[in-house]
Amino acid sequence: MYDIAEFIMRATSQVSSEQAGKMIETLVDLYNRKDGKVLVMGAGRSGLVGKAFAMRLLHLGYNPYVLGETIVPAIGEKDVTIAISGSGRTKLIVTAAEAAKDNKATLIAITSYHDSPLGKLADVVVEVPGRTKYSTNEDYFQREILGVREPLAPMGTLFEDTAQVFLDGIVAELMVKLKKSEDDLRRIHANIEL
Amino acid sequence: MYDIAEFIMRATSQVSSEQAGKMIETLVDLYNRKDGKVLVMGAGRSGLVGKAFAMRLLHLGYNPYVLGETIVPAIGEKDVTIAISGSGRTKLIVTAAEAAKDNKATLIAITSYHDSPLGKLADVVVEVPGRTKYSTNEDYFQREILGVREPLAPMGTLFEDTAQVFLDGIVAELMVKLKKSEDDLRRIHANIEL
Amino acid sequence: MYDIAEFIMRATSQVSSEQAGKMIETLVDLYNRKDGKVLVMGAGRSGLVGKAFAMRLLHLGYNPYVLGETIVPAIGEKDVTIAISGSGRTKLIVTAAEAAKDNKATLIAITSYHDSPLGKLADVVVEVPGRTKYSTNEDYFQREILGVREPLAPMGTLFEDTAQVFLDGIVAELMVKLKKSEDDLRRIHANIEL
Amino acid sequence: MYDIAEFIMRATSQVSSEQAGKMIETLVDLYNRKDGKVLVMGAGRSGLVGKAFAMRLLHLGYNPYVLGETIVPAIGEKDVTIAISGSGRTKLIVTAAEAAKDNKATLIAITSYHDSPLGKLADVVVEVPGRTKYSTNEDYFQREILGVREPLAPMGTLFEDTAQVFLDGIVAELMVKLKKSEDDLRRIHANIEL
Repeated sequence: MYDIAEFIMRATSQVSSEQAGKMIETLVDLYNRKDGKVLVMGAGRSGLVGKAFAMRLLHLGYNPYVLGETIVPAIGEKDVTIAISGSGRTKLIVTAAEAAKDNKATLIAITSYHDSPLGKLADVVVEVPGRTKYSTNEDYFQREILGVREPLAPMGTLFEDTAQVFLDGIVAELMVKLKKSEDDLRRIHANIEL
Repeated sequence: MYDIAEFIMRATSQVSSEQAGKMIETLVDLYNRKDGKVLVMGAGRSGLVGKAFAMRLLHLGYNPYVLGETIVPAIGEKDVTIAISGSGRTKLIVTAAEAAKDNKATLIAITSYHDSPLGKLADVVVEVPGRTKYSTNEDYFQREILGVREPLAPMGTLFEDTAQVFLDGIVAELMVKLKKSEDDLRRIHANIEL
Repeated sequence: MYDIAEFIMRATSQVSSEQAGKMIETLVDLYNRKDGKVLVMGAGRSGLVGKAFAMRLLHLGYNPYVLGETIVPAIGEKDVTIAISGSGRTKLIVTAAEAAKDNKATLIAITSYHDSPLGKLADVVVEVPGRTKYSTNEDYFQREILGVREPLAPMGTLFEDTAQVFLDGIVAELMVKLKKSEDDLRRIHANIEL
Repeated sequence: MYDIAEFIMRATSQVSSEQAGKMIETLVDLYNRKDGKVLVMGAGRSGLVGKAFAMRLLHLGYNPYVLGETIVPAIGEKDVTIAISGSGRTKLIVTAAEAAKDNKATLIAITSYHDSPLGKLADVVVEVPGRTKYSTNEDYFQREILGVREPLAPMGTLFEDTAQVFLDGIVAELMVKLKKSEDDLRRIHANIEL
């Protein structure tokens, strides 16, 4: 747990505040326009990170949707899509991102690689670090020699956990920019609690 | 398959057109007001029937949500909730329906029993037939003696399949009332097709 | 509602009992082998029909999974995949079906077109009627002239509702073949009811 | 983002290794027995954290299910349920946990409060810190006076993000205990990638 926490802590200084700033700007503009939707897209565990962010976008007063859920409306030029993929190569998400661009929506990519297929499609890229390739023995040797140490976090874990914390940081920033208190968020929070 | 189809066919003349009319009226009013949401609620296979209906409500121009999905906003007095439960006793759905009423939303119940806990809570009840209790040996005997024959459709199957067809009938009726063509529906249909 | 019910009733005599028989045989064999999983795949409303069937497969004693849900294991040659697509052309489902075949799983296709891309990939095809294309004006003219009348059921509705009833017929048949009573199904039914 | 990362970092030394050890022990025992299932239960964003953990349990060779998904089998005395709720008072989850205990399953609770209704029901409690109540003005005053500073992370955010990292730490530990390499996990990872 400590190793993952340390990775996230290190990532806080690696994420570009310029990139994050553009994402905030795009979302603040969407909020003020009041005429567009947000569609969040991610596969597997990245999809869950996207859903957690989409919930908060709802609480902030947005009109969010999640790819793969029951209710997904048509997307157009007033809308913003947010695609989450560590490698930037997840086939489902790249295909969805292409469709989003074909329909003239704005595309924000959360990925470790700005020059990945997803990164290249995006209007705004935020690079969030992660280990998206898995360790081979050779990697292990290099890491030992070079002193690069990675926690035992399989597959996309580091990207996913870091992206989750990054996006919750975006939520905090949006609360400030949109002048939303926690009570404002609670008012929109689901009131059919089971 | 024939037995289930025959059950549904028989049900077409059993569903009260007065009850169905009130449901249509409530949904047409919501559409014209343009200031409310629909929340569809159902457990298990009844929940899937609800999702299929919610998709069509989206295509018709409504703002629908599904209980249990990622995006579920707060519900209030301008909103309509539709609860689907054959027995009208599914605990999760009765609890959700109570919360809906507490928040002053209009409640439509699709159930086999108007005098069930769900039916009693609802503003509009549409009774859709089904066999919601399961057959005991005694039932079997009675059915053989009395000539009442039921298809081999376990648990809520008959209610669920009949409710699905009934709700697609409501969609057809709403298309007429709201003057929506199939092309109108297609325009709202998700355009990120994967 | 009557029009849709009539369509389903007509379909009961159109579905090939030979095709349905092969599907039953494949599923009975899987049950007896006890070493394979079932993965059900469908997009949109066809996906919901697949989920309703997957629930019953669980109750019957199978080990089913649904594409797009959280828990989807790797699929191999001992496994059976069931793909549902009226047109047999839904991109997501054809891609998934190709992956299933690449991994040597048995593929059952539920579609209106045996010669569609999905139909051609499948080991077992069951043709379930539906109107998967939407009505053009020309179609309308032809229908009026030829006396072919279709219910006002937009897009895939007729296929979806017919497939649902067909698959519940398969459940009834499997109950007989596997000697399962309704009580057997109930024992496996989720007991954390909320 | 930094504030949240710092909170998680601090939490790494607050989580009891004895409590975490009991959770590991329960899961290793379940793995070795090979005759039980895991059911993961959580509401809202805690539910998403649970799904991310359930995916990894699948990759590790477990037979996991997620409450609220399509496929949820009956749970019995050989099974382990894992309930996630910061407050330990989420009605849906407490009700589900009661049902799990009624069916004699082992219950692991991930919560901030060992003496909450959920904590009291559980066989194993792991306390994960979080701010589960929201800030009132009075709180704000106290925090300013007392120098207790909290990040602008609304509602359950801190618990959810910390629980996610904690559970990924459990995955790393299980990889060691069960002698699983990343390649082992990959072999079980879904191979129908879209």
